[in-house]
Amino acid sequence: MSNLRFITAGESHGQLLSAILEGIPAGVKINLENVNADLYRRQQGYGRGGRMKIESDKVEIVSGVRFGETLGSPITLIVKNRDWENWQKKMSIFGEENGEKVTAVRPGHADLTGVLKYNRSDARDILERSSARETTMRVAVGGICKEFLKACKINIASRVVKIGGVIDDYELMKLKIDEAKSKGDTLGGVFEITIKGVPVGLGSHIQWDKKLDAKLAMAMMSIQAIKGVEIGAGFECANLFGSQVHDEIFYDEDNRKFYRKTNRAGGIEGGMSNGEDIIIRAVMKPIPTLMTPLKTVDIETKQQVLASKERSDTCAVEAATVVGESMAAFVIAQALLEKFGGDCLSDIIATIETYNQRLNK
Amino acid sequence: MSNLRFITAGESHGQLLSAILEGIPAGVKINLENVNADLYRRQQGYGRGGRMKIESDKVEIVSGVRFGETLGSPITLIVKNRDWENWQKKMSIFGEENGEKVTAVRPGHADLTGVLKYNRSDARDILERSSARETTMRVAVGGICKEFLKACKINIASRVVKIGGVIDDYELMKLKIDEAKSKGDTLGGVFEITIKGVPVGLGSHIQWDKKLDAKLAMAMMSIQAIKGVEIGAGFECANLFGSQVHDEIFYDEDNRKFYRKTNRAGGIEGGMSNGEDIIIRAVMKPIPTLMTPLKTVDIETKQQVLASKERSDTCAVEAATVVGESMAAFVIAQALLEKFGGDCLSDIIATIETYNQRLNK
Amino acid sequence: MSNLRFITAGESHGQLLSAILEGIPAGVKINLENVNADLYRRQQGYGRGGRMKIESDKVEIVSGVRFGETLGSPITLIVKNRDWENWQKKMSIFGEENGEKVTAVRPGHADLTGVLKYNRSDARDILERSSARETTMRVAVGGICKEFLKACKINIASRVVKIGGVIDDYELMKLKIDEAKSKGDTLGGVFEITIKGVPVGLGSHIQWDKKLDAKLAMAMMSIQAIKGVEIGAGFECANLFGSQVHDEIFYDEDNRKFYRKTNRAGGIEGGMSNGEDIIIRAVMKPIPTLMTPLKTVDIETKQQVLASKERSDTCAVEAATVVGESMAAFVIAQALLEKFGGDCLSDIIATIETYNQRLNK
Amino acid sequence: MSNLRFITAGESHGQLLSAILEGIPAGVKINLENVNADLYRRQQGYGRGGRMKIESDKVEIVSGVRFGETLGSPITLIVKNRDWENWQKKMSIFGEENGEKVTAVRPGHADLTGVLKYNRSDARDILERSSARETTMRVAVGGICKEFLKACKINIASRVVKIGGVIDDYELMKLKIDEAKSKGDTLGGVFEITIKGVPVGLGSHIQWDKKLDAKLAMAMMSIQAIKGVEIGAGFECANLFGSQVHDEIFYDEDNRKFYRKTNRAGGIEGGMSNGEDIIIRAVMKPIPTLMTPLKTVDIETKQQVLASKERSDTCAVEAATVVGESMAAFVIAQALLEKFGGDCLSDIIATIETYNQRLNK
Repeated sequence: MSNLRFITAGESHGQLLSAILEGIPAGVKINLENVNADLYRRQQGYGRGGRMKIESDKVEIVSGVRFGETLGSPITLIVKNRDWENWQKKMSIFGEENGEKVTAVRPGHADLTGVLKYNRSDARDILERSSARETTMRVAVGGICKEFLKACKINIASRVVKIGGVIDDYELMKLKIDEAKSKGDTLGGVFEITIKGVPVGLGSHIQWDKKLDAKLAMAMMSIQAIKGVEIGAGFECANLFGSQVHDEIFYDEDNRKFYRKTNRAGGIEGGMSNGEDIIIRAVMKPIPTLMTPLKTVDIETKQQVLASKERSDTCAVEAATVVGESMAAFVIAQALLEKFGGDCLSDIIATIETYNQRLNK
Repeated sequence: MSNLRFITAGESHGQLLSAILEGIPAGVKINLENVNADLYRRQQGYGRGGRMKIESDKVEIVSGVRFGETLGSPITLIVKNRDWENWQKKMSIFGEENGEKVTAVRPGHADLTGVLKYNRSDARDILERSSARETTMRVAVGGICKEFLKACKINIASRVVKIGGVIDDYELMKLKIDEAKSKGDTLGGVFEITIKGVPVGLGSHIQWDKKLDAKLAMAMMSIQAIKGVEIGAGFECANLFGSQVHDEIFYDEDNRKFYRKTNRAGGIEGGMSNGEDIIIRAVMKPIPTLMTPLKTVDIETKQQVLASKERSDTCAVEAATVVGESMAAFVIAQALLEKFGGDCLSDIIATIETYNQRLNK
Repeated sequence: MSNLRFITAGESHGQLLSAILEGIPAGVKINLENVNADLYRRQQGYGRGGRMKIESDKVEIVSGVRFGETLGSPITLIVKNRDWENWQKKMSIFGEENGEKVTAVRPGHADLTGVLKYNRSDARDILERSSARETTMRVAVGGICKEFLKACKINIASRVVKIGGVIDDYELMKLKIDEAKSKGDTLGGVFEITIKGVPVGLGSHIQWDKKLDAKLAMAMMSIQAIKGVEIGAGFECANLFGSQVHDEIFYDEDNRKFYRKTNRAGGIEGGMSNGEDIIIRAVMKPIPTLMTPLKTVDIETKQQVLASKERSDTCAVEAATVVGESMAAFVIAQALLEKFGGDCLSDIIATIETYNQRLNK
Repeated sequence: MSNLRFITAGESHGQLLSAILEGIPAGVKINLENVNADLYRRQQGYGRGGRMKIESDKVEIVSGVRFGETLGSPITLIVKNRDWENWQKKMSIFGEENGEKVTAVRPGHADLTGVLKYNRSDARDILERSSARETTMRVAVGGICKEFLKACKINIASRVVKIGGVIDDYELMKLKIDEAKSKGDTLGGVFEITIKGVPVGLGSHIQWDKKLDAKLAMAMMSIQAIKGVEIGAGFECANLFGSQVHDEIFYDEDNRKFYRKTNRAGGIEGGMSNGEDIIIRAVMKPIPTLMTPLKTVDIETKQQVLASKERSDTCAVEAATVVGESMAAFVIAQALLEKFGGDCLSDIIATIETYNQRLNK
């Protein structure tokens, strides 16, 4: 199994969300403010509804860290749900069922498939877990991974590229979101992740499931509402000649280093990081819960009804961007540990340095 | 570990390529002609160079099948390389090194990163494995998976959507390929996979790494030269309102079945198959080996040189399409076994039927 | 990855211990009293020291269960440490280090190897996690697995077989423990797990890492202080002829069922459950923390010192027995889900029944 | 997934046996004579029957090695079955079934459980794969791992400890085997593996499935006919006081190294290698195919019959010992790569040296 792994748990309106992240080496200093700043960013963004504005998630670490430093042991992360008080009957672990059920399954969600697969009569049994609320814990996990990566001089940034057809113009994007909101409609968009400082040779060409781009694609597509992912020039590759796509290779004699002047490969060739920035884009579909609800079927009565409404965001692409960063951080941290091994930060840094010296001699 | 797994092995010009596929249930009848037909399709397509026309891959099964039926034990697949005779010195397993090395690493390939990562002085040590020749075995593996899926009434089809900017018009695509060829250039494109008959509820919403779309994205992105993948409406989601994207839900009283009139979700909601056709598109970059070679650096002399040429295809999107089908077949077969368990085909078919009866009652 | 998995987390004197168990199907009724009863059993047993008598662990479920029934989503289990108040400075997550360190590493523990591997100067950074306190969460996890297994008519029992050389005589075992205690010494022993009702055919002969006995051996040996494991006749096989070891096969015409009159195989042949009771024995070494401490080295001064004392049990074989049950429950539940698939209890029960009907027709 | 993995394939009387081993770093020189010497050892030993004496397995490498050195790519290993000619009809991949079936399922084998689980009517469909013939490929895989370990100064040895109740006296063991043979009976025994030179800190205490002893136990128990495994003092721990079991710790000022004067832990404490020799013992049951056959049931007629005879060995403990070495080599190589990472031998050796310097300063 991989050196680094995590599981998240928790229902959207349960008492708390949790995650266990295992495999972060010992000796990494954790600045919780950085992690909480990412949690805050996940809750912001133009187009978010009421709930997000009220909530302000804070993560607690309850294992795996001592005196501000990781121990190498599993890190338990907890985010308490602030409105648990209002939900503790509906979401009671051992209380009595009260008969109140969600049966107007929402298109675009896990609701219908979930109740069929898991044989439930209340779509809440599904939607509480399938909700993008789960990504809170991915951001917390990713936040810890980022602290580790930063110590290895790897940094991750992101930006929103497109919303509702508007490219790169934030003010026009806002207008588009206003338009959608006024119609009771929603919007999706595209975000871009850039990872700087990745050593040459993470991932491998030798087997399909060891390719770094494959792992990044899985991680991105695993985010709720993501419907596509591309690396570097991505889908634009279908419009260009080879001579327009591939990045010629040069050598910097001073630094004794190979480099490229272009980066259409997005930092990955042959399933491996090539030392250039890794560039990933992902597309998020519009939020499926509309204020002007879509038609659906009541799973109990089998009658045509309007979909139930759980949330009221118009656009959450900015939030998804933070989740994208987090998943990218996890995949890169995992690949780094696979390549360089190591149980403590100082050993890993030493191994990376020795490796880079070999490459640049 | 998953019930179903495979590893491929072999160098492009080695004696043979091999794969072991483990976890196919017992009792599946294998028609080798179907598998070989896919291998043939992988070698065809407008824009392929000389080598592909000469070669004609045939797979041999040497374990796991008896009297034409799977035993449940691991299936060894072998494809012999027909020009081994000409390569046995250059690729000798235990012979003497002859000093002939590939040092003009090719842009767009694993060559440079591979020699650095694995500390090799001959790029052949890398390119022989990173070559798309490896996908031969994926097609063989996928061919076996398809035989199993067909027995479960699941079928996979595909088509080329775009080549060099030309959409859906095969004759114009050919002209575009001719143009590229005449320039010593190459082209990429987009293909689409459609999977019919998938039961409701493969994959799961409960964890990031159990989502069916995430697994499909990984499988597609793992294919050599693939730079993007999308499901259903995909990147088009960034241009549309929610009301234009989500598929309303209806109920067919006669067949006691939920259905949708549209399929922009591409058959997957909440990380699970929803019973509609699964639709995946992937983009392939143009082949990086150009007859008008790109600039690069000789890894030995560090001098600027032109990239070496290993192959001479102009466009291989049609071949990649077959590989895409194969990887999709593997992922769906794996998800099917995870959901329904089963060690023999008859048990699995019975379990699927009982499940479908529960859903449609 | 397996359908069923878990990770535990938490330090021995941290705020809480946690675990996430993922893959338990939906629809399993959870009786928390059963789980807590196992936690209680883990804390009892003749030979336990003061701490165990004071503590009384209670597990809380904070996700994955609603109205007393599993949802199919990950189950978060939490056990709070009752003496956290006294330890919150020493084990502070983000507080200041106070300079108090454990440097007299204890023989027989992870202490020395851990501080070297993870590059720590305080053995507490290791021993807090390596402590058998961690098994609390395994018992909680196993308790949930047992609820699922019971619903599938599979039951697990155990007994202590030997302590300090005394076989099968509980009163003599107690005397032996008293003797050890009076010397400031400790004792180990052997326990036996019996699993009844396991369907024919869990695990598989087809690959080394799919064998049920291999998985059980791993699970048992993973328990703190376990140094050996055997199945059925186990090490006694080295003293007997084949004719004395193997279980002849008979057929019960009335129940249309194969059976054996003996069970020296311990219920597993060819890496698969054969329908007879599964019988596993494991040996626990004496607790390594002695009241009459062993010689060791101070990792800071490199001087010869006496080992530090963290705990004061004389014998914990009875506790280990409960942990053994729990790990066995997990492995069997995992193998059951691999064989029968299924996302909800009713589907799984139906699939097992159909399978058993095929076997007995 | 682990950096190192392998799958074996092939039926006992099929055309060939195969394995793919993936993750061996680049730059390891392979001496095939060493691997073949292990294959030879696996076929020898007092008590083997006719077949073993005739056969002489030779492994072929057909991928992953070039000019005698590993490339980092998957290594395909093939061992041809020398009597394939005589079996090609009975074991034909695509030929016609000839109706000749094994129905007198053998006690102590996978036969009965296998035909039930996989729904086969011919026990040959099971026994051809469950046969210990499969361990040929484990020895080949282990042979490659040993070449890698030797380059890292790790060596594996083994010895037979007990056969048929006779301990440590080879001549008496032979007499015991003669006695068994004359009765048409069989014998099992115990073997011991010793691994020297293992760095401190392979495996980990932080999670049940990362413990080195757990992985070794799984690997040993996965070998055909193994019914028990112990590490260090093993089951003897149940007879001793703690003061007799644990290894006190000392410090060697000259070499700046911690050490122990005893090794009852068998080189593993807290789930980690502690730098002392790793010592594992495993017990093999007597071969279940007796020349004086056991009673069983014909699966077709359900009548009581005598078990069919596939092989004629009296004792195969010496062979199992070689398999034990091989599995140990794999586990240690895997743990080494997890701890130290690395894609080429020189990087790994450098990382181990840097680590050892940190430990000994």
